[in-house]
Amino acid sequence: MTIKLDADGTVTNPQGFQVGTATCGLKASGNPDLMVLHSKQSCTASGMFTTNQVVGAPVTLNRETLKSNTKSIRAIVTNSGIANACTGNHGLNNAIEMQNMTSKSLQCNPNEVLVLSTGVIGVQLPMEKIGKGIRQASSNLSINGGYDGAEAIMTTDTNPKYCAVEINLPTGTVTIGGIAKGAGMVHPNMATMLACITTDALVPASILRSSLKTAVNNSFNKISIDGDTSTSDSVLILANGLSGISCAKGDYRKAFTDALTCLSTNLAKQIVIDGEGVNKFVTVHVSGAPSEKAAHIVANSIATSPLVKTAFAGSDPNWGRIVVAAGKSGVRFDSRKTQLWIGSKIEDELQLVAQATPCDYDENIAQHIFSQPEFYIHLDLGNGKSEISVWTGDLTEEYVRINSDYRT
Amino acid sequence: MTIKLDADGTVTNPQGFQVGTATCGLKASGNPDLMVLHSKQSCTASGMFTTNQVVGAPVTLNRETLKSNTKSIRAIVTNSGIANACTGNHGLNNAIEMQNMTSKSLQCNPNEVLVLSTGVIGVQLPMEKIGKGIRQASSNLSINGGYDGAEAIMTTDTNPKYCAVEINLPTGTVTIGGIAKGAGMVHPNMATMLACITTDALVPASILRSSLKTAVNNSFNKISIDGDTSTSDSVLILANGLSGISCAKGDYRKAFTDALTCLSTNLAKQIVIDGEGVNKFVTVHVSGAPSEKAAHIVANSIATSPLVKTAFAGSDPNWGRIVVAAGKSGVRFDSRKTQLWIGSKIEDELQLVAQATPCDYDENIAQHIFSQPEFYIHLDLGNGKSEISVWTGDLTEEYVRINSDYRT
Repeated sequence: MTIKLDADGTVTNPQGFQVGTATCGLKASGNPDLMVLHSKQSCTASGMFTTNQVVGAPVTLNRETLKSNTKSIRAIVTNSGIANACTGNHGLNNAIEMQNMTSKSLQCNPNEVLVLSTGVIGVQLPMEKIGKGIRQASSNLSINGGYDGAEAIMTTDTNPKYCAVEINLPTGTVTIGGIAKGAGMVHPNMATMLACITTDALVPASILRSSLKTAVNNSFNKISIDGDTSTSDSVLILANGLSGISCAKGDYRKAFTDALTCLSTNLAKQIVIDGEGVNKFVTVHVSGAPSEKAAHIVANSIATSPLVKTAFAGSDPNWGRIVVAAGKSGVRFDSRKTQLWIGSKIEDELQLVAQATPCDYDENIAQHIFSQPEFYIHLDLGNGKSEISVWTGDLTEEYVRINSDYRT
Repeated sequence: MTIKLDADGTVTNPQGFQVGTATCGLKASGNPDLMVLHSKQSCTASGMFTTNQVVGAPVTLNRETLKSNTKSIRAIVTNSGIANACTGNHGLNNAIEMQNMTSKSLQCNPNEVLVLSTGVIGVQLPMEKIGKGIRQASSNLSINGGYDGAEAIMTTDTNPKYCAVEINLPTGTVTIGGIAKGAGMVHPNMATMLACITTDALVPASILRSSLKTAVNNSFNKISIDGDTSTSDSVLILANGLSGISCAKGDYRKAFTDALTCLSTNLAKQIVIDGEGVNKFVTVHVSGAPSEKAAHIVANSIATSPLVKTAFAGSDPNWGRIVVAAGKSGVRFDSRKTQLWIGSKIEDELQLVAQATPCDYDENIAQHIFSQPEFYIHLDLGNGKSEISVWTGDLTEEYVRINSDYRT
């Protein structure tokens, strides 16, 4: 039983999925901005959504749709350029209209369609243009359309994000594919992040839900660009079962969850690397915590601290900021026991702090590690056995420039 | 009973307080870096300290000192340039040594001296230089020394911070004076903020403590530069009673607390305005919250959001970011009821959002308000009667530049 990552794969790698795209004119760039993802067979489905209380109309609608139907979803329609968030009842009606128009084009029921929108907040969708786009995208569905789909859902992303995994099981091969968009919350006002995941595995909806939860908690929920959550953050998964291989039980279920986590982690890292103004990819590992939750809180406190992130940007191994960001997290620990290591790989790991006081380390080596495009920091709290890694980027002048540019 | 603010006042305005300063050579700039504040009469005293679990040695020592003695404090010794934080037992011994050396110079008991240090983390104090500085500062104590003291405690501050208030009571005049330093947590590695407050009012230690708590909660605890708390944050108050006027009870007690809050608020605002890279002073007012605590959490979530603060920097009235920052705070509210106003003064207040959807406002006016050096935003959650204001600044490229510069 092996899991193989395909860095060139997308949502059209699993059998029976097709993607069509269109240009409605929602993006200033004139790039494609609408995607229809379709399965020739009904899918079990699940979704996880933003924890922000202010949510876009598509989030409200998808929650409703998945409350009544997780067993026969046929399609996802997505537009980029306008988030359909903070748009009131009018916006909710527009989301429902997108669902209706897509179901008409694909000849299925409205409640078999999920809807995603990403882009500017507080602006209503131009429904005539959207309708034209949906008809066009539905007419050019292709089993090679995944890459175009990844491009069509981009907003401030500089690269499309996609990958696939193959699970080789004794009874045959199951494929999972994904596309995603990030990053940073907003630019000029773009509400992120979205991910669409497809699979030809045969998975009951309840198990799909629990596998997705595990995968998302270990991937998308472990990244932070700037600590802001958006109105639109959504991860959707469709399983059409066309491989004929069930992943409902035992080792098969575990392999499916592992593969889904692997795919999600890969997409999550792509989001961080392409984060607004991000030049460095940093893994923040916290160990010695009283619980995994505590480790996560401490790691997030470090990963979102402007002072830590500007130190990353400046290649400055300024460990005081890291220890202090842990100390402000609210998690209780005996600060006299903290230890800190940094490294670009395990072999060159360097200990900076032992028992909360500086080690006698070579500052040049520390600075060299922090100047790498990818490195890790490892803080041990000396106060338990739980650990966690989260992924983040640096905070650069470019981030500020991008996000303080006046919307035009 | 009136309270009069003296913008030129300092800690030497109240009777019986003197300040001496010295240059020990801790700062690269060669500026004065040591201050001794002395009262000719024993003082009741109180202090409030950082909530960070990683604390500097002076915080540990002051907590100990104030545990056993809040009735006869004579002096505060402060150095800038080195924070004496993350320095282990050696650092704690150095703080005790500062206390001993100061008590010797001033001929009082060691436990009558409070100690503050601010500056680089993880570096030991050069005690010989510090000792020389303490002897020098103790020999040039002056009733006009307050301004020099405010300068001597600066690290990355561009201006000294000070003010005084006079309370005119039927029985005479009581004075409170203060100096402070900020801002941002660290540069190159500077651990902020400090405030020393003096008064010639006669106030029992227990009442001093409760007045200080009220004042600090309504001033220093309501500001945010970058959401990071430091190892050294401390506010100390000494009351020597030399005015002969007791502020222990009734209207006198209330007037004292009000005046102390007024003084602390003034110093807190000075810290924000002089924050690292800060070009704009923004009041974030949240109303319609289920409790004051909830209002404070929402206001802090807005005031520390990088996306909101970069929008301030870009003069971009990007209200979506403000609503979304409230939504991620964890406080429950019905987002459909939110309303948002902005203004530089009440007369030009402009409503941007009603019932979570955009109003028909003039974008040019909104942008004009956000381009002012000082403005406010007012978010009503429509979900209760509690409200609060916090003060913050914008997040500029200069902030990133300052904090990503490698320490040298």
